[in-house]
Amino acid sequence: MESNITIGQYLINSLKKIGIDHIFGIPGDYIINFFKEMEKNNLNLIGTCTEQGAAFAADAYARVNGISALCVTYTVGGLNTVNAIAGAYAEKAPVIVISGAPGICEISNDIMLHHSIRDQNSQLNIFKEITVAFTRLDDPYTAAYEIDRVLQTCLKHKRPVYIELPRDMVKETCINPPKKVTVISKMCPKSLEEAIEEVTSILNNAKNPIILAGVEIKRYKLEDKFKKLLEKCGYPYATTFMGKSLIPESHPQFVGVFMGEVGDEDTFKYFENADHILILGTLMTDTNLGATKFNFSQSIYACDNRVFVKHHVYKNIMLGEFLTNLTEKIDHKAIPINFHNEKKKNYELIPENKLTANKFFQRLEAFITPDTNIICDVGDCLFGSAGLHLPDKANYLGPAFYTSMGYAVPACIGTQIKNPSKNTIVIVGDGAFQMTGIEASCYLKYDLKPIIFVVNNYGYTTQRYLKEGSYNNIQNWKYHKITELLGGGLGIEVYTEQDLENALIRAEQNTESYTLININLDKYDRSNTLYKLTSILGKNIEPNAKKEL
Amino acid sequence: MESNITIGQYLINSLKKIGIDHIFGIPGDYIINFFKEMEKNNLNLIGTCTEQGAAFAADAYARVNGISALCVTYTVGGLNTVNAIAGAYAEKAPVIVISGAPGICEISNDIMLHHSIRDQNSQLNIFKEITVAFTRLDDPYTAAYEIDRVLQTCLKHKRPVYIELPRDMVKETCINPPKKVTVISKMCPKSLEEAIEEVTSILNNAKNPIILAGVEIKRYKLEDKFKKLLEKCGYPYATTFMGKSLIPESHPQFVGVFMGEVGDEDTFKYFENADHILILGTLMTDTNLGATKFNFSQSIYACDNRVFVKHHVYKNIMLGEFLTNLTEKIDHKAIPINFHNEKKKNYELIPENKLTANKFFQRLEAFITPDTNIICDVGDCLFGSAGLHLPDKANYLGPAFYTSMGYAVPACIGTQIKNPSKNTIVIVGDGAFQMTGIEASCYLKYDLKPIIFVVNNYGYTTQRYLKEGSYNNIQNWKYHKITELLGGGLGIEVYTEQDLENALIRAEQNTESYTLININLDKYDRSNTLYKLTSILGKNIEPNAKKEL
Repeated sequence: MESNITIGQYLINSLKKIGIDHIFGIPGDYIINFFKEMEKNNLNLIGTCTEQGAAFAADAYARVNGISALCVTYTVGGLNTVNAIAGAYAEKAPVIVISGAPGICEISNDIMLHHSIRDQNSQLNIFKEITVAFTRLDDPYTAAYEIDRVLQTCLKHKRPVYIELPRDMVKETCINPPKKVTVISKMCPKSLEEAIEEVTSILNNAKNPIILAGVEIKRYKLEDKFKKLLEKCGYPYATTFMGKSLIPESHPQFVGVFMGEVGDEDTFKYFENADHILILGTLMTDTNLGATKFNFSQSIYACDNRVFVKHHVYKNIMLGEFLTNLTEKIDHKAIPINFHNEKKKNYELIPENKLTANKFFQRLEAFITPDTNIICDVGDCLFGSAGLHLPDKANYLGPAFYTSMGYAVPACIGTQIKNPSKNTIVIVGDGAFQMTGIEASCYLKYDLKPIIFVVNNYGYTTQRYLKEGSYNNIQNWKYHKITELLGGGLGIEVYTEQDLENALIRAEQNTESYTLININLDKYDRSNTLYKLTSILGKNIEPNAKKEL
Repeated sequence: MESNITIGQYLINSLKKIGIDHIFGIPGDYIINFFKEMEKNNLNLIGTCTEQGAAFAADAYARVNGISALCVTYTVGGLNTVNAIAGAYAEKAPVIVISGAPGICEISNDIMLHHSIRDQNSQLNIFKEITVAFTRLDDPYTAAYEIDRVLQTCLKHKRPVYIELPRDMVKETCINPPKKVTVISKMCPKSLEEAIEEVTSILNNAKNPIILAGVEIKRYKLEDKFKKLLEKCGYPYATTFMGKSLIPESHPQFVGVFMGEVGDEDTFKYFENADHILILGTLMTDTNLGATKFNFSQSIYACDNRVFVKHHVYKNIMLGEFLTNLTEKIDHKAIPINFHNEKKKNYELIPENKLTANKFFQRLEAFITPDTNIICDVGDCLFGSAGLHLPDKANYLGPAFYTSMGYAVPACIGTQIKNPSKNTIVIVGDGAFQMTGIEASCYLKYDLKPIIFVVNNYGYTTQRYLKEGSYNNIQNWKYHKITELLGGGLGIEVYTEQDLENALIRAEQNTESYTLININLDKYDRSNTLYKLTSILGKNIEPNAKKEL
């Protein structure tokens, strides 16, 4: 390993080593010298309109690449990413946040430095709440070790980490940097052995077992191990909402995306009839599971680092090890599976009809080709798309647990920067588009060509069904005219089913730029899934209140 | 006081009582029932495109109204306001942040609720870093007292506070709410007496004293007390950048806006020649003071709650009390003041010339009428506007210390909602406009009619002078075409000096909507102030590095 290496250079080398070619972010005076160093080192710097946009893009890049980095200036940059990084924490996207900071030599003066809040620790304290590791690189003796520690923690836990880089430390030389990085795994073989024994004894005696597979299988790249388990055991499986399309949905044992009572009825029936549920790598959250509460007496739940059996827990078991060992020990069961994955309703075009949410999602299903990225924002875009039957190699991305509005347009930058050749479809509501849609600017800047559907129902429609009021109204933009402001792109407006047909043809023919399709729906229109979900979620708005009209 | 009052109603009544008529924010399912209650109680709900936009608007409303409130949903809403609220903390804008949260009865389940991060305290812990008081209203016995405590702290310290409102507590009845609110002041009369004695003995013996007045005089509404002090003592005074226009700049003792070596040379000379400087209510920060370091042996510094004399400090002295008592004791000095406030360069129109930053600011000065709000964003908009000579009753607003890009367009919503009749000018750079300019949507939604100057120099020009690189380039939008996207407004593009003349005429004639003027400058063009500032700030970028090219 290099001696005489600067802290900045060590960080850059480490980022490259773990597979990061692109850095998302916006410079500012507390970080600009590190930007210069990154530029000199041929890291691709992807500048967005806002730091939040950069953070959402980095989140998506981490989901497809396995890891990503975000680089911002102190407070005015960093604090603009707090929501997006909190989302990455919640949904397990490993993003390395690098923030500039005042130089160590600057901060002892009587005068406060611009961008300061209470004291020099304010931003670090905030990021402690939303990361699994954090450090300030203020010491040439420890900086390299700290970088190693923090990056390894990011890779291990697949959650964001925070590195604060005072601007006068970028060119300081590391003193005695480490010779070799060692990753300490906390695997416990005894715990694993015992867990496998108990789990197999339950499952091998089960009559109607079923598997629910979640997003961690994607994050830890365990798709192949999971397929082997499926083959060996023969059980039916569903994915969660967040795990959607983790392996091709054409798999013969696939019985749908599980969303409890909110989702597909046939899928739900499999779970109702099951005597044991093996839950693998799933985030146990309300939106992800359609507000289902599982009976833990009949569940086995293995996730990153833990295996829960009934009401006890085995610790320090890696999910990958668990899958491998379980596959070895589990018996095969010939469980008849008669799930009709290909139950697409025949789309019946009625050209002059006003387009509805349900018809839009039906039509979209036929439009999606293999090898497509589908990125969904929050609201009916997310819920309406949950039931889409995706072709093989299609990849689905949506913030189904943290559900922060405005994720999709900037997230698309992240996926396309990583895979420029992939077809990409963005589905975003009008409310969410008003939050971050302007990041479509980067589609022009970096020559990205997604198709964006703005599902425009004139306000916060999901909320209209929770509690209607004037606060759910928003200004109705001519979304398809964003091309005028940005100076490029193809914008199309759609009202009827025939309009949609024409728009899809034009979008397919447009190889020059992104295409944005403004889908005008009725203000109270909603997909079937949203219909069911709002009925359930609505009950929690005021649990103790007397019923209102 | 009412008995049988709900927590939600008590909060609403308290907000109204302290002078809040408008609430900025966006609903979500954890807060929507409180939005409904606010609507029923005729609070004006101002919905922006993003929560950050709402927070900047609330910040500006607080600066003109004395206090404001922001209402958002849990995490995905609240965490989007962290940067803006940090700025309000830094610059002393009293914003009450009200965030929804999961119901107390919901959070003990095995399943995680959507929008959650690590645990239920994550958001509260984050807001602890950027507020002077915080509470979670989870107990009907204490809720009303907590509301009182937190609102009083906000009023006292003029900094943000945080109230978390679990959704099942909105309609819970307060148990034994307080009969009467008492504000405890921590004033110490002995300390005040001693401080006044020492300060007057210094100043009455001074030969060339001068006053530097800062933003706290505005925040605590001490303008009249300050004017009485000026009249009594006869000293010359300057304001800081943040205190700009705190009393009319036509005051005979006014000697300019102090920005150290960066600012006006004549102003700086007054400070160089002074033997004692009385600093009143100033935030001691680098950008606010043009990176000046004061010699504290010759300074007296009175701010909120403290008086520093040379190297010792008197605590628990309110700034208002200090001013009143000092005015009583101080001697008059007839100090000759020959500052030419009206030294406007005669603007010489050369119609076909390409417009420059300096010419733009010169022309703007003549355009500003009395009773105008000027709201400046960060970068050359801020620095270039520092030297503007403002007519009486013009009000200047700019984030001169925290300097978060993207402040001005949403801040204008806050000032105009409060004072719809006032002329308002927004000056914003292209980079900052890309961050939050889309909030101009609210100008249409709420029928506001500011004139927005987008000072377009094709990227992050301030940073080009710190360290140039590709990361300073941004996509060049057709900013004046935002009217197409938003569906309204008047957009004008300007290249030459004559274009600007025509644009100003059209803007004045436009009484129907906002006017946005896209001012095309050269990419390396900058105002004189920015020229001087970047020379000084540039030195801090890499204090220890060897000189580069």
